[in-house]
Amino acid sequence: MPIPTGVGAEELRRANLRAILQTVHTHGPTTRAVLTKQLRLNRSTIGALTGELQSLGLVTEQASAVAGRSGRPSHLVVPQSDNVVVAVDVGVDRIAVAVVCLGGEVLAHRFRGHQRGQHDVAHVVESVARMVEDVLAVAPPRTRCLGIGVAVPGAVRARDGMVRSAPNLGWVDEPFSELLGERLGRAVSVGNDANLGVVAEHMRGAAVGYTEVAYLNASVGIGGGFLVGGVPLTGASGYAGEVGHMQVDSVGPGCRCGAIGCWETKVGENVLLQHAGRQPGGGPPAVAEVIAAARAGEERAARSVEEVADWCGVGLQAIVNLFNPEIIVLAGSLSQVWVAAQTRVTRSMERSALVSPHGEILICAAGLGEDSPLMGAAELAFAPVLDDPQGVPQAV
Amino acid sequence: MPIPTGVGAEELRRANLRAILQTVHTHGPTTRAVLTKQLRLNRSTIGALTGELQSLGLVTEQASAVAGRSGRPSHLVVPQSDNVVVAVDVGVDRIAVAVVCLGGEVLAHRFRGHQRGQHDVAHVVESVARMVEDVLAVAPPRTRCLGIGVAVPGAVRARDGMVRSAPNLGWVDEPFSELLGERLGRAVSVGNDANLGVVAEHMRGAAVGYTEVAYLNASVGIGGGFLVGGVPLTGASGYAGEVGHMQVDSVGPGCRCGAIGCWETKVGENVLLQHAGRQPGGGPPAVAEVIAAARAGEERAARSVEEVADWCGVGLQAIVNLFNPEIIVLAGSLSQVWVAAQTRVTRSMERSALVSPHGEILICAAGLGEDSPLMGAAELAFAPVLDDPQGVPQAV
Repeated sequence: MPIPTGVGAEELRRANLRAILQTVHTHGPTTRAVLTKQLRLNRSTIGALTGELQSLGLVTEQASAVAGRSGRPSHLVVPQSDNVVVAVDVGVDRIAVAVVCLGGEVLAHRFRGHQRGQHDVAHVVESVARMVEDVLAVAPPRTRCLGIGVAVPGAVRARDGMVRSAPNLGWVDEPFSELLGERLGRAVSVGNDANLGVVAEHMRGAAVGYTEVAYLNASVGIGGGFLVGGVPLTGASGYAGEVGHMQVDSVGPGCRCGAIGCWETKVGENVLLQHAGRQPGGGPPAVAEVIAAARAGEERAARSVEEVADWCGVGLQAIVNLFNPEIIVLAGSLSQVWVAAQTRVTRSMERSALVSPHGEILICAAGLGEDSPLMGAAELAFAPVLDDPQGVPQAV
Repeated sequence: MPIPTGVGAEELRRANLRAILQTVHTHGPTTRAVLTKQLRLNRSTIGALTGELQSLGLVTEQASAVAGRSGRPSHLVVPQSDNVVVAVDVGVDRIAVAVVCLGGEVLAHRFRGHQRGQHDVAHVVESVARMVEDVLAVAPPRTRCLGIGVAVPGAVRARDGMVRSAPNLGWVDEPFSELLGERLGRAVSVGNDANLGVVAEHMRGAAVGYTEVAYLNASVGIGGGFLVGGVPLTGASGYAGEVGHMQVDSVGPGCRCGAIGCWETKVGENVLLQHAGRQPGGGPPAVAEVIAAARAGEERAARSVEEVADWCGVGLQAIVNLFNPEIIVLAGSLSQVWVAAQTRVTRSMERSALVSPHGEILICAAGLGEDSPLMGAAELAFAPVLDDPQGVPQAV
């Protein structure tokens, strides 16, 4: 393709406004001197651009103690933290909500179980709406809410946020973003939890600086989110990355999706709990208890951890063969099992001599712990303003 | 990121030379009028650029019968077909070699079995070298060979063409491109057969116009090649797309890779032949015979086709869940089984209610038949000249 011609001055200015706002949102306060260098623009142009962002209420400028290239102290461009979004992570066990400021600081962070343990969409919409209203009610005065982003554990149609299928919530074709948006009287963006998780890990977590990333998050099910060439893998309609339903065990148990022997029926946290003789539903603390018991010598717990570790390796080997990632970021019970039984997982992955992952692939626990999908949901809500700072809503 | 500044006139001219050459190589003879419109350049600039490509010996210009916008006939820019590459596809059963002209026309196309049935790298290098020399010896005078591209059924390191692992040839860490290059006294580029196949299907086959593409080619093993956002999926080192070694059957047979129950042990062509009571090694004609026998009522053949169809569905469902492609292009025995037992394959894919592929994903046989990897290997060899037309070697 030819290099596009006819990039006008206005288009260039928008691109530079965007670049400055994205830089301070991602990396925090940045001197004008650094921005000047990064954007290859002159000082007066940078000054005009940061002035415009300031008048839009998106940044402030402070005198910096650090001297610039000229020897004079360079202004520090600071993301204005009264711009916030509300991020929501709808899990199978609990709902988490956070207020996240421009620049990434988390102001409020709450979670609670589903209302009466119910997953039906009307109950979830009502629970989430109340939690959102509660956190916004206690936000400082002059807070401007730029948007609401929600992570859900299912296939979300990119075009309109329709949740096509979330087997572990029992949802099929639920227009969740529409329902929540109507209830709150605000636009709501919805995305798949793992697709959002990988974005957050790339931006502020374990995958900073990598372009080929696999993020795998196990709780009741397993979500997968991928970066390919630094860009989130969405597929044709937004459903890519559903790693949990690869058939790995032809004689395995039935899965909520209708098939048998899906990867998540072999490594989900409830599988680990039940094989160890525990009740399902205890979440990460219960998984930690089993791992501790295994370490202390309880044979049933140890066998369960080993079995799950072996099946982790089976799925990870498929991921490595399909995506050849630089880094695999593990979250939820996958991360717990990895930390406890790394050698066993690695040995299982290396059953196949195809391409040895050893020494070529970094495998690690999520840098943001359980919060990657939540922080990714915040980025989903920030996206319109980061993409077009001049379009920022001026009303609170 | 800011829009890059400082794109010089020379850089722009190279980009436009590249765009013109790629257009005529992909789409064949094109009028100056169409190029002018596509590249948003004026008529005299296009004339200067096609003149330069002509002096490099890459295109010719012919008077066209079709009138341009001005009413005057527009010159037709034609790829100069005495620029050729030699494409090679090293299969498990046979080696195919073709001379492919700029513009995509195939001049010579030959194949033969491996020398004494041997896969050891020295024998394969010698066989390929002789076949390359033979086809070049009968090429028309004034033919200019721009390069040699080779497709192999294994993981190829992008950096240097090292074949890290090709289980069905028994190769581990074979520097095939170096060995063949030394034998021929020419540079040789090597790539994974399926990764090359998807490029060819996108350029001249069933996947023209699609950006999210899965190409799956089964013979003894199964190769997978993917386009994500129109760009070939390579992964960190070039090994992405190895679909054949996903474990699908936990009680399945051993695989040459060292693991058990890999997808290719359930759907490879020899599996279909053996389940039907035939000898392995008969290739596509033997698969066609089994399918015909199944249709004619032979029970054992029918059962084999059904079983392989079921396992096809298991693997395709994983691919759909992971990549959410617009189109799946099937080649080799996968294509034969798909055509013969489409309903059965689809039913197997839809065991899982996760995201119904029905009506959203096009599944079809390869447009280039068995030749997609070969034609992709040709593109690998054309790539340097298409990327930098001015760098075309002037010696024959």
